[in-house]
Amino acid sequence: MSEQVLIYSRFPKSQMARIGERYDLLDTGGKTPSEVFSAAELKPIRALITAGSQPIPGRVLDTLPSLGAIVCFGTGYDGVDFSETTARGIAVGNSPGANADAVAEIAMGLMLASMRRLIIADRYVRSGGWAKGEPTVLTTMPPGIAGRKVGIYGLGEIGRKIASRCAAFDTEVGYFSRSRHDAPYAYFDTLDALAEWSDILFVAVRAGADTRHRIDASLLKKLGPQGTVINISRGSVIDQTALVAALQTKMIAGAGLDVYEKEPQAPDVLTGLDNVVLSPHIGGQTIEGLATMQDCVVQNLDAFFAGKPLPYPIG
Amino acid sequence: MSEQVLIYSRFPKSQMARIGERYDLLDTGGKTPSEVFSAAELKPIRALITAGSQPIPGRVLDTLPSLGAIVCFGTGYDGVDFSETTARGIAVGNSPGANADAVAEIAMGLMLASMRRLIIADRYVRSGGWAKGEPTVLTTMPPGIAGRKVGIYGLGEIGRKIASRCAAFDTEVGYFSRSRHDAPYAYFDTLDALAEWSDILFVAVRAGADTRHRIDASLLKKLGPQGTVINISRGSVIDQTALVAALQTKMIAGAGLDVYEKEPQAPDVLTGLDNVVLSPHIGGQTIEGLATMQDCVVQNLDAFFAGKPLPYPIG
Repeated sequence: MSEQVLIYSRFPKSQMARIGERYDLLDTGGKTPSEVFSAAELKPIRALITAGSQPIPGRVLDTLPSLGAIVCFGTGYDGVDFSETTARGIAVGNSPGANADAVAEIAMGLMLASMRRLIIADRYVRSGGWAKGEPTVLTTMPPGIAGRKVGIYGLGEIGRKIASRCAAFDTEVGYFSRSRHDAPYAYFDTLDALAEWSDILFVAVRAGADTRHRIDASLLKKLGPQGTVINISRGSVIDQTALVAALQTKMIAGAGLDVYEKEPQAPDVLTGLDNVVLSPHIGGQTIEGLATMQDCVVQNLDAFFAGKPLPYPIG
Repeated sequence: MSEQVLIYSRFPKSQMARIGERYDLLDTGGKTPSEVFSAAELKPIRALITAGSQPIPGRVLDTLPSLGAIVCFGTGYDGVDFSETTARGIAVGNSPGANADAVAEIAMGLMLASMRRLIIADRYVRSGGWAKGEPTVLTTMPPGIAGRKVGIYGLGEIGRKIASRCAAFDTEVGYFSRSRHDAPYAYFDTLDALAEWSDILFVAVRAGADTRHRIDASLLKKLGPQGTVINISRGSVIDQTALVAALQTKMIAGAGLDVYEKEPQAPDVLTGLDNVVLSPHIGGQTIEGLATMQDCVVQNLDAFFAGKPLPYPIG
């Protein structure tokens, strides 16, 4: 009989099919486990798979007394409370860097679509507005990408891939990170200084309690009225209310977002704006990105159930 | 009194404002000049500005007996019939390479938006489909960009800029061009062989009578069911009817188009498709691209009215 694994977050079924071939999956559909399964069903569960960003508080862990492993599908693990997992002896693993290419590609797509207004452009052609010569914001020229100053917040694997792709567009690239890297880009020792300098600011930092709302009203003001912010990290890094206000008042020019404060929700005040490009947290989701993430998840689970250390441990 | 210049194509007024400061503009709004102006008004006109792609037949030139210069706004001049202009001693000029960065950026934006389905993604978030967990094509993973084979048809200034940007995405880059260039990309000696090899095919060739419908049903079949075609050159290079059929039957995976056979028309059979990203010929339209194009137009006009050769002549 296969081992049982709880699916803690809401995933498309197709993403779990490969893992379901090896394990008996109990799918919560993203609900609290005790709402979907009985205490008797939850009691023997030894491992769970989470999207990483969804909080797993102590009261949930209390309903899973046999839990020994939390496996994050993707690189992020900001929903995991390590004081709780450490106290319970629960191992935590992730899929490090598995989808860095895919996420960097979405970041670049969001940046180009924002700067060159591709959502508005596509709508203008499809609606017949172009054929009829209707007035459009598209006749007001946007700045091009070449020659712009691109700031990258967080120069991890994804940040470095964004940097090298932006450099090929003949931009100037700078970054802020906890420490200076051996990289051919300008280092800024504060995020504020980076925002002040940047025309385009990519948020590629690993999210956690320390990065919550680091992009706030004051920082957006420094980015300024020609500025565009792209977030492919986590929604928590940006104060979403401040971002909406900045976009409404044109304190900044635009935004491209793959992540939100409360997924899968994007508030109406955001979805009603024309100067944003929105995608539903699909950054890592390519055939290759998914396969590599699944590999990491399977390897973490296999090792755990074989009584071995996780090959991709966190903390 | 300023010299008079006829505006032959339909341009947003803002694009002509700078030129209007130096010249007295007679704007046809894209209509046939004789529909808008009397023979007496057209008789003294010595220069006109055209978008380059709009045909200027001999019967139109017959209504402009004093015409000495045709100035193309942009790099293209495929609407100009050189047998007619040469016979009449009309000089023709353009804005060479002025907007290569801007066009390469749109090409990359269309490619990323097509491959990663950003139009569908944005619509899914805005419609509330994501929040409600509605079924979506987005859960079927697309291939990533890294590792793909990118073919470039035409390695002029724009093609080379597309090539270097794609290379930064860790793709393999190949090209077909009339001749082999000193460039670090694989050269294919036929367009068919390039299409057969490519996952993503960029059309960046200079359009003309010899390139009309070069991308036809047979070539799209070679590109194949995983293939995506991006066109930022001219609509005439692709057989648009064949392209629509190929997209409808999934003979190819998708397309990103900035140009169309009959602008500003994109037919309903095209605008009804989900596997395309459409933009209204905005490739060259950035602040920098426009300013450089305007510089070239003004320099061509100034030289002509001063009795000097055009600084940016064609043919």
